[in-house]
Amino acid sequence: MSDELLELANAGMENTIPIAHKMGLRFTHIEPGHVTAEVPFEGNGNHFGAMYAGVLFTVGEIIGGPLAMATFDMGQYYPLVKSLTIEFLKPASSTVTSETRLDLEDAAKLQAIADETGKAEFQLVSELHDEQGVLVGRTTGTYQIRKVG
Amino acid sequence: MSDELLELANAGMENTIPIAHKMGLRFTHIEPGHVTAEVPFEGNGNHFGAMYAGVLFTVGEIIGGPLAMATFDMGQYYPLVKSLTIEFLKPASSTVTSETRLDLEDAAKLQAIADETGKAEFQLVSELHDEQGVLVGRTTGTYQIRKVG
Repeated sequence: MSDELLELANAGMENTIPIAHKMGLRFTHIEPGHVTAEVPFEGNGNHFGAMYAGVLFTVGEIIGGPLAMATFDMGQYYPLVKSLTIEFLKPASSTVTSETRLDLEDAAKLQAIADETGKAEFQLVSELHDEQGVLVGRTTGTYQIRKVG
Repeated sequence: MSDELLELANAGMENTIPIAHKMGLRFTHIEPGHVTAEVPFEGNGNHFGAMYAGVLFTVGEIIGGPLAMATFDMGQYYPLVKSLTIEFLKPASSTVTSETRLDLEDAAKLQAIADETGKAEFQLVSELHDEQGVLVGRTTGTYQIRKVG
């Protein structure tokens, strides 16, 4: 089930978010409450020979989408991102991975809030590591689910 | 002078930050204390038909580079970005422009601090507007200049 979702998410990226496809970004794991992705260094550098800030942003931010899709009932709710802070901790010059988690009990509570009030807000933290396992950045996004209709 | 810098910055982007070049991003004004840029909608959408968050991030963040290069003495200082917060205010579905300013008296004070302590920190706010003039987002970045050597 989650392998099919992963294939679908990666196969669809060229159409859904073409610029992420051009970065070579791909999701590497999608299950309720847990998503990972990675992006290669090739083509994504800056004039200092490090990965460009906008690519680090993207690999951190983009996993909020499949996290919401895999965790919440997408027939009843849709997700959106309100704001996001990224900290640049170290320069990265290799493939960068990102990982985010949402507790499933918290997710059930968020759905109950959205049922009652029409929306619910939550934060997702994505940690970004380079190939050597160095923490190169962290994104903290404020997302909402909103009740459909 | 600033027109040459503008041409140079745009001509060099394919080599310096290739992914921004792939977005079709270009600088539209560069002078000490004031930089603007724009990015087209074409190729930069998401699955909701709005401009992808990572593209909005990029057009807001990237102008910090030429702002620093045009404002500070790049023989003596180099700039870096420490963290950045982006607020998503409205969905954008047209060309998006960004604009940031740094007061030149404040810049002189920052250089004096960097001369004394080796570095100086400052914030740059970029406002993002769509073609209709709607404020679609805002980035607030924390940057440093560091004394070379």
